[in-house]
Amino acid sequence: MDLNSYCIIMAGGYGNRFWPVSNKRCPKQFSDILHTGKSFIRQTYERISYLFPANRIYIITGEEYDEMTRKQIPEIPRENILLEPYIRNTATCIAYAAYKIQEINPGAIMVVLPSDHFITNDAAYLQDLKAGVEFAGKHGGLLTIGITPTRAETEYGYIQVKNKDNQQKITAVKTFTEKPNAELAQMFYDSDEFLWNTGIFIWKTQDIIQEFKNHMYDLHALFTTDSKLNTPEESSFVRNVYGQCHNISIDVGIMEKSQHVYVLKGNFGWSDVGTWHTFHDLCEKDENNNVSNSPKVILNESHNCIVNVPQRKNVVIQGVDDIIVAEKDNYLMICHRKDENQIKRFEKYFRRKQ
Amino acid sequence: MDLNSYCIIMAGGYGNRFWPVSNKRCPKQFSDILHTGKSFIRQTYERISYLFPANRIYIITGEEYDEMTRKQIPEIPRENILLEPYIRNTATCIAYAAYKIQEINPGAIMVVLPSDHFITNDAAYLQDLKAGVEFAGKHGGLLTIGITPTRAETEYGYIQVKNKDNQQKITAVKTFTEKPNAELAQMFYDSDEFLWNTGIFIWKTQDIIQEFKNHMYDLHALFTTDSKLNTPEESSFVRNVYGQCHNISIDVGIMEKSQHVYVLKGNFGWSDVGTWHTFHDLCEKDENNNVSNSPKVILNESHNCIVNVPQRKNVVIQGVDDIIVAEKDNYLMICHRKDENQIKRFEKYFRRKQ
Repeated sequence: MDLNSYCIIMAGGYGNRFWPVSNKRCPKQFSDILHTGKSFIRQTYERISYLFPANRIYIITGEEYDEMTRKQIPEIPRENILLEPYIRNTATCIAYAAYKIQEINPGAIMVVLPSDHFITNDAAYLQDLKAGVEFAGKHGGLLTIGITPTRAETEYGYIQVKNKDNQQKITAVKTFTEKPNAELAQMFYDSDEFLWNTGIFIWKTQDIIQEFKNHMYDLHALFTTDSKLNTPEESSFVRNVYGQCHNISIDVGIMEKSQHVYVLKGNFGWSDVGTWHTFHDLCEKDENNNVSNSPKVILNESHNCIVNVPQRKNVVIQGVDDIIVAEKDNYLMICHRKDENQIKRFEKYFRRKQ
Repeated sequence: MDLNSYCIIMAGGYGNRFWPVSNKRCPKQFSDILHTGKSFIRQTYERISYLFPANRIYIITGEEYDEMTRKQIPEIPRENILLEPYIRNTATCIAYAAYKIQEINPGAIMVVLPSDHFITNDAAYLQDLKAGVEFAGKHGGLLTIGITPTRAETEYGYIQVKNKDNQQKITAVKTFTEKPNAELAQMFYDSDEFLWNTGIFIWKTQDIIQEFKNHMYDLHALFTTDSKLNTPEESSFVRNVYGQCHNISIDVGIMEKSQHVYVLKGNFGWSDVGTWHTFHDLCEKDENNNVSNSPKVILNESHNCIVNVPQRKNVVIQGVDDIIVAEKDNYLMICHRKDENQIKRFEKYFRRKQ
């Protein structure tokens, strides 16, 4: 792997769609919702450690997760954990990492990975990342990884390719689209022009910085004026910068505007596990299409349920269909699956109450 | 109140229809399911303590509940707690109390009360008990208390009066009927001949003993052969007797057979709180007909639910109708209300697993 390549794992966010199993104290990326024995972020780390040595892996997360990160991934150096004082979405998060690494290595190539995705076929995944790094290093521009849709999913963003007949692994991008409604999603799915947006990005730090300069000059100015990155004052500098940043995603702030965007068609199994619905898709079901995380859960004459409870808990569910039962600590949620989009409201409600 | 009158509170049984809120470790009668601040048995005790001094109140319960009984009702003498080594239904339970008290006072009148019923209008209730004791003392025979039905309930036993035009407070009984099906219950309700069977009985000990002699001679022989009741050997004697007894209710063993059965038409509000359904009837509902035992339970777009959880627990229920959610200790049950009759099976399953 290119010695100038760095991996940035983004581990912000509360995963509030999985409340109460995921919550502010232990967000989704630090949880083992799928009960694999390892948290999402640990899996992400182990997966990419085949490509990157620990000192070229950075994790960027909320400052309240410093200890949890160090505990779950003791391998990486302390200074590779970048702490965000506030949540300011992916544009700010990526800018912080980009400007910091650019100072360390002006020839750096960075791979930006979400910390909480589900990947099958690790070998194909690593091969794709490697090809991406090679492309970004040689060709330049902003490279994303897209996945060929297998259904008209409304919970993912989409990437439209410029020329759908281009059979190359990497092609130019025409548009970025946020989560579509059902009708639009069906059109995207049928058109063969759209890929799912994985939120994985690969570029040279100098290229993304040029794009910040062009499209988000305020942000560029904040990080470059009197920079204290990589000094003992980094933390207070970052706090000051974040205090002045807007909450904008990299997709909206840069990807939708840039003229230099490319997409690599990923060859691996991928899910962002962003909802209980996608969680249900990924898990083994019983004969009534129920998913449960514990052998102590008994489901009688119940169908299409999702149950995620503490392992010690005895649970009986009788004669109920299409519900999500999630318990953690002192919180129990029972939600009809049709109302899944309400869940993040509950998280917000209880977080504010605390 | 007649100085020969005694009150027997029957506190056996597991209340398994309320599992897991009621369970073998703390059955319904010792629980405060209605959240009044007092357990059912404590309420029963306090209610009848206006009629009986503590030394003429007996509690008969499983030997595993000795400590719980003494703790909840410290007022009554230790020797007034009769401990059953096994569950042998009401005929055996009542026989134990009857033969014991008969030895203490051959002229005794006993009032037998279930420990886990819900009563409104205590004054009317006490007045009815007093009238019953007077009747049993003067007239003899087996007196029960019936309640004029207010609906075609299938969960109660029924008492048919001999002459429905008899407007007397106390009348002769024609038949005892176990829980009817819906059609039969409707007929009973429409006929004006049937009363709900409260399971409250009043009789002279010598009268019930005569009936045991006539209809359950085996049981009579067991309790009278070499009786060690009211001696230091009572406990081992009772263990031996119970080991040889059958599991028969007083209704089946005596009341259905006896020619001397009367019913007093009770004038008070009564429910045996035998099911979540009756529990729901008794409790205050929110605007969507939900019943919950805690202000920490949030019910959104949910209807006709019953929620009974620990007071400390934060619960959100979203978009779900007609479910019972009950949690205690390490057990959580979510059951559709149409399947309420399954609940006792769950209790049995987990009791056997322990």
